[in-house]
Amino acid sequence: MNTRLRFMNLCALLVLGLSTVACRGLGDGMDTGDEIGAVLQAQADAWNSGDIDGFMAEGYWNSEELTFLSGGSWTRGYDPVLERYRGRYVEGDNEMGSLEFTDIEIIQMGGDVALARGHWELTFSAGTTSAGLFTLVLRRLPEGWRVVHDHTSLDS
Amino acid sequence: MNTRLRFMNLCALLVLGLSTVACRGLGDGMDTGDEIGAVLQAQADAWNSGDIDGFMAEGYWNSEELTFLSGGSWTRGYDPVLERYRGRYVEGDNEMGSLEFTDIEIIQMGGDVALARGHWELTFSAGTTSAGLFTLVLRRLPEGWRVVHDHTSLDS
Repeated sequence: MNTRLRFMNLCALLVLGLSTVACRGLGDGMDTGDEIGAVLQAQADAWNSGDIDGFMAEGYWNSEELTFLSGGSWTRGYDPVLERYRGRYVEGDNEMGSLEFTDIEIIQMGGDVALARGHWELTFSAGTTSAGLFTLVLRRLPEGWRVVHDHTSLDS
Repeated sequence: MNTRLRFMNLCALLVLGLSTVACRGLGDGMDTGDEIGAVLQAQADAWNSGDIDGFMAEGYWNSEELTFLSGGSWTRGYDPVLERYRGRYVEGDNEMGSLEFTDIEIIQMGGDVALARGHWELTFSAGTTSAGLFTLVLRRLPEGWRVVHDHTSLDS
């Protein structure tokens, strides 16, 4: 099956903070890994500054076609996804906590399409955590790489 | 954002059994929707015949690079994914039950890359069910469209 690796440029960004980047494959995968890694870092930075609007704007496709799946919940559209985040992490007694992405792998699927997957973890002020895995499908748009589909799950 | 729809051929296969196929967009999205719908149908047929090997072979990339994420569990490689299914649905007192995919949307992301998402539901002999959402990233390979990455989550 090794011949099929030509289809994939697999870049493993071991920890956001991007101190280590490992890439396999051909082509411009390294650039794509760097670019998408920077998008995810910008999202984490916005989140950790309490900026939920920035977290959305830095990473997500601003479209009614954006999709976000989590557990059994299917959310469609940029504004509904933003409202879902607000309802869970901003409004009422909720808090955003501190977000970290780790074990990130970025795979270029074509010139303007990529897959990113990894672990996410939120640490809240009481020391509790919430964590799981994510799959992101991204497109290279005029404004940069943006997530067009997000599937997030929670450790069970 | 409507101009970006040119990037996508969104085909909603409302229920597997494929009685209704709705497509938006340009290009060969209809063919891709039909082809990937047939792959998912073949997977469901194999599952519902108790054929876990066929379920794997009909749908998944036979590669050490295949990835399957679920909850907080990350499985890499065709054989480990097969063993995960066996451990959960075949071995011991487990049963495969009856599998149905619904609300399937297939989006062509490029000539040989597609995204499929939808609901899955298993119904067991006692009448209990297990259900959730799936995201599949597929590639058109010499053997046909195959899932190269699967993220599945459970209703919570």
